[in-house]
Amino acid sequence: MPLPIFTAIADIRAAVTGKRVALVPTMGALHAGHAALIRAAAGEAEFVVVSVFVNPSQFGPTEDFAKYPRTMDADRVLCAEAGAHAIFAPKAEEMYPPGTVVFVEVPQLDTVLCGRSRPGHFRGVCTVVLKLFNIVQPEVAIFGAKDAQQSIILRKMVKDLNVPVRMQIEPTVREADGLALSSRNRYLSPDERAVAPRIRQALATIESLVDRGEKDVTLLESSLRVALTAIPGIRLDYAEIRDAENLSPMERLNRPALAAVAVFLGSTRLIDNVIL
Amino acid sequence: MPLPIFTAIADIRAAVTGKRVALVPTMGALHAGHAALIRAAAGEAEFVVVSVFVNPSQFGPTEDFAKYPRTMDADRVLCAEAGAHAIFAPKAEEMYPPGTVVFVEVPQLDTVLCGRSRPGHFRGVCTVVLKLFNIVQPEVAIFGAKDAQQSIILRKMVKDLNVPVRMQIEPTVREADGLALSSRNRYLSPDERAVAPRIRQALATIESLVDRGEKDVTLLESSLRVALTAIPGIRLDYAEIRDAENLSPMERLNRPALAAVAVFLGSTRLIDNVIL
Repeated sequence: MPLPIFTAIADIRAAVTGKRVALVPTMGALHAGHAALIRAAAGEAEFVVVSVFVNPSQFGPTEDFAKYPRTMDADRVLCAEAGAHAIFAPKAEEMYPPGTVVFVEVPQLDTVLCGRSRPGHFRGVCTVVLKLFNIVQPEVAIFGAKDAQQSIILRKMVKDLNVPVRMQIEPTVREADGLALSSRNRYLSPDERAVAPRIRQALATIESLVDRGEKDVTLLESSLRVALTAIPGIRLDYAEIRDAENLSPMERLNRPALAAVAVFLGSTRLIDNVIL
Repeated sequence: MPLPIFTAIADIRAAVTGKRVALVPTMGALHAGHAALIRAAAGEAEFVVVSVFVNPSQFGPTEDFAKYPRTMDADRVLCAEAGAHAIFAPKAEEMYPPGTVVFVEVPQLDTVLCGRSRPGHFRGVCTVVLKLFNIVQPEVAIFGAKDAQQSIILRKMVKDLNVPVRMQIEPTVREADGLALSSRNRYLSPDERAVAPRIRQALATIESLVDRGEKDVTLLESSLRVALTAIPGIRLDYAEIRDAENLSPMERLNRPALAAVAVFLGSTRLIDNVIL
């Protein structure tokens, strides 16, 4: 029997009733990084739901909502192989019927890094994730470390709203050459794909500076930017080092820090990060 | 054994685990209207939780948060007599630890009627009710019809965020002379208390106009305002007739309408309403 795909809220609710559920929220176009999240989920609960929903409310008007890859047949195979029990793939009208107005917002954390480049993005993410939590009522939800700011913001939402879901963050899965897996990697031209691993290498450069004792955040950030801007065809969106808990700015590396970068290769926006 | 009072989120969560719960959210200072909500709750689920929390985030800086009545001993007796099984009475720091930033907002519906007079009020109400729902995880939550706009906004929040809670609204309980029960009635001086039933009478005036076939909302609103402003010592906050579902303005009574009023008697703000 192929993996069941539910499109109606009432149907997925009926399917999960009485079960201990782990949820893996995705936008589809699944890759080995998602497979790792699903395998982790299968170790945490008896019933793994993968939501596949390209959430319109987290895309800006000039972003890639329309062309975001939709690959449901392949996604279904990947989900089944990784150990999922059901896919929840609602249509936009099911999640946002006409007249939907309520939203959830995480002030402060959502105005830096990706939030500054993508106004409204995290409001859309928080709102859809809270809706998915309310629909699927999982015990645990699994997210990837690549979306570092997303994880920090969602953990804050869960804490501040007392959402009864445990958040679990899994390590970023990478290609052999270091490029972080992303559904958007398929947009890259061969030339762009060839230089893309240098994003990870730039982060590795400052990791080794830190290993050698460097604690000056301004120096580390400029080393990171120098390494990134040397990549042919790149346009830097941001490269910053911030407190890994609350994203506040830092001067010295005296507590866990997130080094996060967003770049454009051609028209493709890629993100990556490392914890220092 | 007296009714248990839980103050810690972890403790009330442990107490409700595995039970079918009905929640009656209150700010305490309970009266017979709350007792009716609790009795209704006891008919809906096996375990009735009454939350008693004077929520700072729904009071404006010039409002009566500090002097809002706190009567826990009497509240505990009333809850027990009405059939509650537990009280959840957290301190403000338990609900809003330092650094709490997330909030839930219902745009549009929260800028009219009480929302216009009390900016931020419904954001505070939505946020605390969503937190209470996430903490207590009730099947059903019971609210009173006196807070008509609150019910409309909370139902919208529940719908838009797919909150797995059934909302049940119970009729307003009144004194023999028609005054709607309110924790704030105890603020009234004898003179104010003597004229307060005329708020309900003003609403009854337009009910009988409607019974006689009147459909012109402007005429009905001005009749309502004339009747209200004739009350000695009264200051009108608002008296409006709006769509009972979405609070949009109306010209003709061609669908269910909410006639809602808010007035000050001295420094005490009272609300009442009727469905036309």
